[in-house]
Amino acid sequence: MKIIQSPAEMQSVAQAQRREGKTIGFVPTMGFLHEGHLSLMHSARARCDVLVASIFVNPTQFGPNEDLDAYPRDFERDEKLCREAGVDFLFYPTPENMYLDGHSIWVDEESLSGVLCGTSRPGHFRGVCTVVAKLLHIALPDFMVLGEKDAQQLRVLRRMVRDLNFPVEIVSGPTIREPDGLAKSSRNKYLRPEERAEAVCLFQGLEKAKELYSAGEREANVLKNSICEIIRKTSGSIDYVEIVDDETLKPVQTLNKPVLVALAVRFPGARLIDNAVLGK
Amino acid sequence: MKIIQSPAEMQSVAQAQRREGKTIGFVPTMGFLHEGHLSLMHSARARCDVLVASIFVNPTQFGPNEDLDAYPRDFERDEKLCREAGVDFLFYPTPENMYLDGHSIWVDEESLSGVLCGTSRPGHFRGVCTVVAKLLHIALPDFMVLGEKDAQQLRVLRRMVRDLNFPVEIVSGPTIREPDGLAKSSRNKYLRPEERAEAVCLFQGLEKAKELYSAGEREANVLKNSICEIIRKTSGSIDYVEIVDDETLKPVQTLNKPVLVALAVRFPGARLIDNAVLGK
Repeated sequence: MKIIQSPAEMQSVAQAQRREGKTIGFVPTMGFLHEGHLSLMHSARARCDVLVASIFVNPTQFGPNEDLDAYPRDFERDEKLCREAGVDFLFYPTPENMYLDGHSIWVDEESLSGVLCGTSRPGHFRGVCTVVAKLLHIALPDFMVLGEKDAQQLRVLRRMVRDLNFPVEIVSGPTIREPDGLAKSSRNKYLRPEERAEAVCLFQGLEKAKELYSAGEREANVLKNSICEIIRKTSGSIDYVEIVDDETLKPVQTLNKPVLVALAVRFPGARLIDNAVLGK
Repeated sequence: MKIIQSPAEMQSVAQAQRREGKTIGFVPTMGFLHEGHLSLMHSARARCDVLVASIFVNPTQFGPNEDLDAYPRDFERDEKLCREAGVDFLFYPTPENMYLDGHSIWVDEESLSGVLCGTSRPGHFRGVCTVVAKLLHIALPDFMVLGEKDAQQLRVLRRMVRDLNFPVEIVSGPTIREPDGLAKSSRNKYLRPEERAEAVCLFQGLEKAKELYSAGEREANVLKNSICEIIRKTSGSIDYVEIVDDETLKPVQTLNKPVLVALAVRFPGARLIDNAVLGK
């Protein structure tokens, strides 16, 4: 595995691989890898000649009051995990070589970004779209693997690839969970033990909604209320619990096509998200 | 020469060419070709294996009160000219297959776009950046040739390529002029005979500024006034006459590094632009 810090070097390596007819798979991450990331890498590894992963805590997707500085980092461990996962090139740039002096170009998504996480994190998806556009031009992959845990991000980036005609396929990988059901996340590390125990409420809420849905319930409000009820028994405060059209992310009243059930809960230690798709 | 209307087909043709190791040159246009466009095509032709040109009157770069519907079109003539210029693939999409239902992704430039033409054409460069990002992903060129006549557009797109790490080189081609000095433009067609005669004032103003600069004049105001004086003798109304830093497009008072002298003049029939670089 080769570690590359320079965008220009990474791009010319990727171009050379493509010229040789190799297919490139790409997994972008912010590091502090967990089994969720590794499962995306394994899935990518199985279907490409050359596996590129990136580790970059992208400053432009954090708001001024968010956890950019506190975001967990452990490059040594990440490097080892990437090597074990079969990564060929690990792209590990600095903020300075990703955002040059006078950076003035931004990729904006104006329909799917204003709801769910976009409400409490203005500018977040603009930062995500911009950095992923850059990473796609640097790593030049045939396909990119993204986690389903970041449901809105996945949909926003699918839209970006569609609307800007990026020559890349987006493959999604399922959410990986702890034994009790909590979705793996780099931010779980910041939960205090009592919060960690309560944090399973997101998963439990989703399971409850699935159960009601299977029993025939189709009213979004009933499902939402049953999720909220479970969360309210904990110290977490609800950022949002929404049931939206799986494609447009517009609110749904009665479930008669695939929907995304998405929720975000703030614990003192960390804000957590989770989701499930119903009716697909 | 093959004419391709579908973005997906154009992209797969381009991918096939690249897989064969061919270099692709690309000239994006809005059609109604003149010698300016043709000189860009000749310059591209000389340095690539495969020449792609596009003809697309991009609706998103026109403001609501601008000349989208009136913009001149003559595909039959354009097709012939492209063929003669050695174009291999002519990409000629419809607005509907370039902007799908629910299009929601935009590429914004936030520093160079707010001055010069950006002042009177809000949203123009957002439309330009978005469509060129799309075209670059569809035609997948090694290099793209742009005209120096659209000076601000050239600088905004250079910035886009830099800030989003597009794997493409931008090559610029000089402004082609009528015998009297008027810059060739598809919009010249809309000038009435008396306006056409007066329209040379843009070129004359620039020539006067160059002359004063050569004689040692370094005060931007003196140069600007001399240009305005020439234009004010005509029926054209000045949209702007500016002297700005060639790279940042910030106003310059005293010329001590390369500057862009840029001007836009509205005649009843058409709004014309022209420019010159001094000190390079």
